[in-house]
Amino acid sequence: MTAFDLNILGCGSATSTLRHLPSCQILNVRGHLMMIDCGEGAQLEMRRMHLKFSRLNHIFISHLHGDHCFGLLGLISTMALQGKGGTLTVHIFKEGAELFGRMLDFFCRERPFELKFNIIDTRKAVIYEDDAITVTSFPVNHRVPCVGFLFREKPKQRHINADACKQHDVPQHAMNSLRLGKDYVTPQGVVIPNTELTTDADPSISYAFCSDTKYSKRVINAVQGVDWIYHEATYGDENLKNAVKRYHSTARHAAVVAREAGVRRLIIGHYSNRYMDETVLLRQAQEEFPATMLAMEGMTIDLNKV
Amino acid sequence: MTAFDLNILGCGSATSTLRHLPSCQILNVRGHLMMIDCGEGAQLEMRRMHLKFSRLNHIFISHLHGDHCFGLLGLISTMALQGKGGTLTVHIFKEGAELFGRMLDFFCRERPFELKFNIIDTRKAVIYEDDAITVTSFPVNHRVPCVGFLFREKPKQRHINADACKQHDVPQHAMNSLRLGKDYVTPQGVVIPNTELTTDADPSISYAFCSDTKYSKRVINAVQGVDWIYHEATYGDENLKNAVKRYHSTARHAAVVAREAGVRRLIIGHYSNRYMDETVLLRQAQEEFPATMLAMEGMTIDLNKV
Repeated sequence: MTAFDLNILGCGSATSTLRHLPSCQILNVRGHLMMIDCGEGAQLEMRRMHLKFSRLNHIFISHLHGDHCFGLLGLISTMALQGKGGTLTVHIFKEGAELFGRMLDFFCRERPFELKFNIIDTRKAVIYEDDAITVTSFPVNHRVPCVGFLFREKPKQRHINADACKQHDVPQHAMNSLRLGKDYVTPQGVVIPNTELTTDADPSISYAFCSDTKYSKRVINAVQGVDWIYHEATYGDENLKNAVKRYHSTARHAAVVAREAGVRRLIIGHYSNRYMDETVLLRQAQEEFPATMLAMEGMTIDLNKV
Repeated sequence: MTAFDLNILGCGSATSTLRHLPSCQILNVRGHLMMIDCGEGAQLEMRRMHLKFSRLNHIFISHLHGDHCFGLLGLISTMALQGKGGTLTVHIFKEGAELFGRMLDFFCRERPFELKFNIIDTRKAVIYEDDAITVTSFPVNHRVPCVGFLFREKPKQRHINADACKQHDVPQHAMNSLRLGKDYVTPQGVVIPNTELTTDADPSISYAFCSDTKYSKRVINAVQGVDWIYHEATYGDENLKNAVKRYHSTARHAAVVAREAGVRRLIIGHYSNRYMDETVLLRQAQEEFPATMLAMEGMTIDLNKV
């Protein structure tokens, strides 16, 4: 099984508390780390969770509210001090690139890695792609321009059936093309169908991050059929008015999105600081969508186990 | 006794660790809070130490390295969300005012309080004064422009001797002028000397913050005869070369400064992340200046008890 883990570093909302840290998550995609949002304290939480700075090459910022990006300065400065190499790409709206770029050019001028800003906007677009994953941004509905991010694993390689390969004397150099689904042709010209020599690849998993946003049909459309979604659930039913007014969601909203989009699992977070016990939110969400869990700092979720 | 407490919120150095937070202190001057440096996480540490945002009206930034100021954005944003009123003054170098001003105008535009930047430079100057205290900046010697801050309590009021006042029938309205040291004149024109009606005021205490700096005669001159100093002690003797090269001090340097300046108590901090046990630093400092203590997050020091 190839690693596809979600680490929750912060799942609080704008007002800081001692119970939650501001928004930050890290996806571990086969050992490569991708950060989603970077609230203040992200660098410390990475240390606490033993996530290595050297493996972090992409940061995706959903929108330009401080609780989703103020950790960038400290994190990037520390990565520079730690001597990280290669490239660090921050996917961010234009004003964010300008503002943080100017700060970092002053406070963190000497960087052993290349710092790139990939300017995103609110249109649906593939903003990153590699051998393992495709990252698509999609518009959500918040007070300021804001996007969700959909991480979709690419089709994985088929598994070699070692016994069958041995039986057919398949040489080592043929294994890669078997993994890609090709048939094997013996030196005598006999075609052995791939399905006799391999077993199915693991399923490709998808994960969507939807925060901050009010309840939105756009989000439902964007995350249709996704395996996992994280959806903000700032409030409970009793604060529905606040949710609507401030372009946030209730836990029930998040759960209705999950149900309507036909996803398999829902994680809720971005809790308002008024909740001392988030199980209130969990219960309301589970009334609409039972496969809901509460995000919590320090949690690692194996997305393969959907 | 009027409150004059020093709260240590962070006493680590540039590279973040789980053992220390970056530079931040809060002086409680008779209930008014004054912050010195504002490393990332300062707002959370204020909550942890039950220090009220509403009482914080002045922030003094020693220099423009990230570990001394990256907490400003989150702290000021939270103060705005909390509805703090009045004025918040940030005493800071010009480039800092420009950079942070621009960030806050974007991320924290709606502020219920007035945000003022008081531009400081490396000259020795009185940068703030009120009824209780005078704050003087003075140059230290670091890689970038950097100042220390000297907080000097103003002379305090004399204590009323209630028994003596009763005996002489001193009316209530005369008490304030007694506290200021004036004699009391009875309705019959008899002068009662102040010293018969009052006892001496509490001593006025002084505290100097000296970080970051290499060992410097300038610092010794600036803190001559001060009661308490906090002096950075990034390294131990075995890293003397690093200290000199990076314009930092060893613990021994800090202690020699304390001794040469004739201060009464020394607090050391700004520990390099290489020290897992700071008592090494404490021992080296105490060889030069026994009245040394180690700063630690969460510590509150009553500066009256010098």
